[in-house]
Amino acid sequence: MNKNIKLAVLGGDARQRYLARDLAERGFETAVWGLGGEAKIGGAVKCRDPKSALASASAIILPLPATFDGITLNSECEDKLKLNAILDWCEIPIFAGKPGESFLAAALARKRKVVDYYASETLQIRNAVPTAEGAISIAMQHLDKTVMGSRTAVIGYGRIGQMLTWLLLRMGAIVTVAARNRAQLASAKNSGARTLHIDPALPCNGLLPICDCGGCDVIFNTVPARLFDSVLLSTIPNDVLLIDLSSVPGGIDFAYAKDKGIRAIWALSMPGKYAPETAGSIICDTLMEYFEREGII
Amino acid sequence: MNKNIKLAVLGGDARQRYLARDLAERGFETAVWGLGGEAKIGGAVKCRDPKSALASASAIILPLPATFDGITLNSECEDKLKLNAILDWCEIPIFAGKPGESFLAAALARKRKVVDYYASETLQIRNAVPTAEGAISIAMQHLDKTVMGSRTAVIGYGRIGQMLTWLLLRMGAIVTVAARNRAQLASAKNSGARTLHIDPALPCNGLLPICDCGGCDVIFNTVPARLFDSVLLSTIPNDVLLIDLSSVPGGIDFAYAKDKGIRAIWALSMPGKYAPETAGSIICDTLMEYFEREGII
Amino acid sequence: MNKNIKLAVLGGDARQRYLARDLAERGFETAVWGLGGEAKIGGAVKCRDPKSALASASAIILPLPATFDGITLNSECEDKLKLNAILDWCEIPIFAGKPGESFLAAALARKRKVVDYYASETLQIRNAVPTAEGAISIAMQHLDKTVMGSRTAVIGYGRIGQMLTWLLLRMGAIVTVAARNRAQLASAKNSGARTLHIDPALPCNGLLPICDCGGCDVIFNTVPARLFDSVLLSTIPNDVLLIDLSSVPGGIDFAYAKDKGIRAIWALSMPGKYAPETAGSIICDTLMEYFEREGII
Amino acid sequence: MNKNIKLAVLGGDARQRYLARDLAERGFETAVWGLGGEAKIGGAVKCRDPKSALASASAIILPLPATFDGITLNSECEDKLKLNAILDWCEIPIFAGKPGESFLAAALARKRKVVDYYASETLQIRNAVPTAEGAISIAMQHLDKTVMGSRTAVIGYGRIGQMLTWLLLRMGAIVTVAARNRAQLASAKNSGARTLHIDPALPCNGLLPICDCGGCDVIFNTVPARLFDSVLLSTIPNDVLLIDLSSVPGGIDFAYAKDKGIRAIWALSMPGKYAPETAGSIICDTLMEYFEREGII
Repeated sequence: MNKNIKLAVLGGDARQRYLARDLAERGFETAVWGLGGEAKIGGAVKCRDPKSALASASAIILPLPATFDGITLNSECEDKLKLNAILDWCEIPIFAGKPGESFLAAALARKRKVVDYYASETLQIRNAVPTAEGAISIAMQHLDKTVMGSRTAVIGYGRIGQMLTWLLLRMGAIVTVAARNRAQLASAKNSGARTLHIDPALPCNGLLPICDCGGCDVIFNTVPARLFDSVLLSTIPNDVLLIDLSSVPGGIDFAYAKDKGIRAIWALSMPGKYAPETAGSIICDTLMEYFEREGII
Repeated sequence: MNKNIKLAVLGGDARQRYLARDLAERGFETAVWGLGGEAKIGGAVKCRDPKSALASASAIILPLPATFDGITLNSECEDKLKLNAILDWCEIPIFAGKPGESFLAAALARKRKVVDYYASETLQIRNAVPTAEGAISIAMQHLDKTVMGSRTAVIGYGRIGQMLTWLLLRMGAIVTVAARNRAQLASAKNSGARTLHIDPALPCNGLLPICDCGGCDVIFNTVPARLFDSVLLSTIPNDVLLIDLSSVPGGIDFAYAKDKGIRAIWALSMPGKYAPETAGSIICDTLMEYFEREGII
Repeated sequence: MNKNIKLAVLGGDARQRYLARDLAERGFETAVWGLGGEAKIGGAVKCRDPKSALASASAIILPLPATFDGITLNSECEDKLKLNAILDWCEIPIFAGKPGESFLAAALARKRKVVDYYASETLQIRNAVPTAEGAISIAMQHLDKTVMGSRTAVIGYGRIGQMLTWLLLRMGAIVTVAARNRAQLASAKNSGARTLHIDPALPCNGLLPICDCGGCDVIFNTVPARLFDSVLLSTIPNDVLLIDLSSVPGGIDFAYAKDKGIRAIWALSMPGKYAPETAGSIICDTLMEYFEREGII
Repeated sequence: MNKNIKLAVLGGDARQRYLARDLAERGFETAVWGLGGEAKIGGAVKCRDPKSALASASAIILPLPATFDGITLNSECEDKLKLNAILDWCEIPIFAGKPGESFLAAALARKRKVVDYYASETLQIRNAVPTAEGAISIAMQHLDKTVMGSRTAVIGYGRIGQMLTWLLLRMGAIVTVAARNRAQLASAKNSGARTLHIDPALPCNGLLPICDCGGCDVIFNTVPARLFDSVLLSTIPNDVLLIDLSSVPGGIDFAYAKDKGIRAIWALSMPGKYAPETAGSIICDTLMEYFEREGII
């Protein structure tokens, strides 16, 4: 049913390749440029240059994130493309993940529509699955123990903290959830987790007992605040594994952890790294919602 | 440590009896009046009249709800006690579940402190467990099938809808979640449920397919709006069981359901009815939070 | 595809009604006699007398159990039918659940084929689901607590003990499994349960600590031996609920339990009582295996 | 309580290091020789030569497997030790995992007691946990999808097949279990899996439909028979991942798979590789059972 609609997919990584394949499977004529690798893109068609990809397209899909430096398109290709160039070539709507402020400003100045699909709550909720699984996969690779029976702590109980907790519990781990919000703690308790109250009025925000009660094998942090500073880290035994899922600036003093010999891993951008196929299909589903809203389909 | 603090527990049902027992276990001197039955109240002490219960008490605990008619105390005792009388007898803080507007007004007029512990988000989140289990217990009693393998629908994905969905999935049921909010649907999908979008723009709010896809054995409604009106009910096969967990006015046209021969059960106040011991302990935990905040302990 | 095959379903209860319905749904011409109630039997046809049900049938299906007294057919009908009469009327194979020794002997004497479908391991394994759910449903009705967080013990780790343990754990209960076989205990440990070794060399077979470690809310027995004798029962607090799922002679001294005021429930024949529709479909699936083996289909 | 008992732990890998640590934690005087690496062995003491480790010991613990070549001790050390030498040095009982026929024969000839602790059913059941987790960890590393929602097949439903199925289901995968034994299939169905009958009378043992029904992302084989021969492999799409958990000779024609471009991984000895700490503690628990039986403790 989407056969007469052409989409231009520019830039990106493995995740974007799967996205292009999925869009083609849904019947869109899908033109691709700027994707490295020899990966399968199914019915999508690679173009030699961005302009031929754009020819008679109804919308442009940029990757997540659209750019790393704010200027050039995120792409695994050698040819670099300036984001602003895309604004000059055509007037069709652009769907981009985290387009960045300068690109948004440039688009606004030219009265071009740029939709940030990363703003979708649906996308962020569904991304919690590959993020949580990716974090557990890292733990499985670094621990000498099975997840079943291991003692884990999850700091923060937002989308990712929740999904991680559920998954760890289902895999048989013992989970202690630390959160500031008491309602979240009640919710964690309902899931079968133990709870610890994060209280800024207490030393180390009340996190000092995190390795008590029979020890701890791995701590997953999801809070984007420097909770694991040198004071707290100095109380944590060296054989505890720390996995930080929080975005910049991260929740762990990595330098101090390294000095002390604690293994601390910053697991950023898990969906695209751990499960690009799933991540691509989540973006694809999200785009359908935006396409409907914007009248593309 | 709470040994020198006396609490007066007035009125209530089985849930309040367990609460009195739990308060005594935590070391409070617990005086009880107005609780029927011969049930165990552990170290709590029954009093002959409310005034002796109140003597030298630091706080009064009224049941959930504190009153059914807005005037007299909710009690299984023959002696009826007017709520306002309690205001006259002493000046200690009163902790009541759903005290009602007229009692709150009377208390305000007398400058007395009445805390509605039912307002606690923690309490409401934790009550989702006995509510969901109670609903499933009802379904187990009425269905000729096992929960495992049965096809269920959960309407609404708030606290109760979520807990119900998780529990049903863990018990092996096939679950379709219907909700208006797309982010909630994404969350339900993450849990392993199928999803259906409630859309007020569609006939029957988009709920017409609820019994499609291989049929449906039981529908749990948690939305406090008349979604299951005669039009929708007329499309539902007679062997489907309907369980309504929504508060007044309920989500089902019960009269129409009865006429048509559909089994529809309004499962109100599940925590106190299904699991009074758990419900009492949830209130006890909640009171501790309020006691701390109000300086009682 | 089964359209030209006629089956005669004689006697039984709700379970047999669902079985008749399921057989008709699979395309068999299904003739029914001896089923009480006005229940739906779908495309199956009620007959006025057993002989017309048998006319040109390819096989006879008797209920589970086929007889309670060894002589007359298990039936909710007022008309009683002697099992041996069925042997005289025709020569087609008979599929019966627990046909009983005297009926088997009579059939053998007349060179008639009687297949005991209750001997099917598949049937017994699948029956563990309605049995375990039924037991939990009983516990939910009798306990004042939620299953989530309750402390349970499962005695015996055969088919039913296993299914019960898995289900309780998934529902959030704390489970201690007691079994004699150490390999079973290892398996229970793998599921996330605590374990206790049943050792005949110890007092009360080593079951004395069953209510230790923080108490116990409900004990499910699945071992068909009098483990819960007066000595063990005398150590069990009165508020513990005992549910016995073992077959005759049962594992609990019910008379002593009653005297002592312990609630002890003997939950026999759960599949047919708790979930007749599921139980009927399990028998239906089992019959298909036998039909294939016996050349009926 | 084990303080006056000395144990000699000879040879092994990471798993043995954790075992030595655990034995020391249980109070045994633990002397170690032949363990490479700088790993923590807690309270266990490294010896310069095997004889000093053996001095006044009550039992010798050899690794799992005790030997790879049937002659020398399995050890990460440079010094090689002949198994038979151990027989000559002392007369205390030897506990070895898979000691091998020639060593057993040599021990028998010298009337020395050698117990094969790998024969323990408890050990093998408990090893199913690290084996299943290890297999899933490999799948997580190789798949571009999340386990949640992925379509998996488990071939064989013994100890490992069962644990794998449970874990995959709890993680949200769709699982099809293929097994020859119908009772095992009923058990798999009870767990929530789909089932496929392995039937030697059918082409490819009835496994041809394994990638039907919406495709398959990963196949886990646990059956130690060449089920995945070139004929079956030729029907499997190239993007399916094959993980073989069966022991020698393995269930997959790896050469053919490689030629065809199918990713096929032979995941042998998972407990020691994936989770040496857990594997060590399982051996430690198993040894306690044997020690009790042999009168060591």
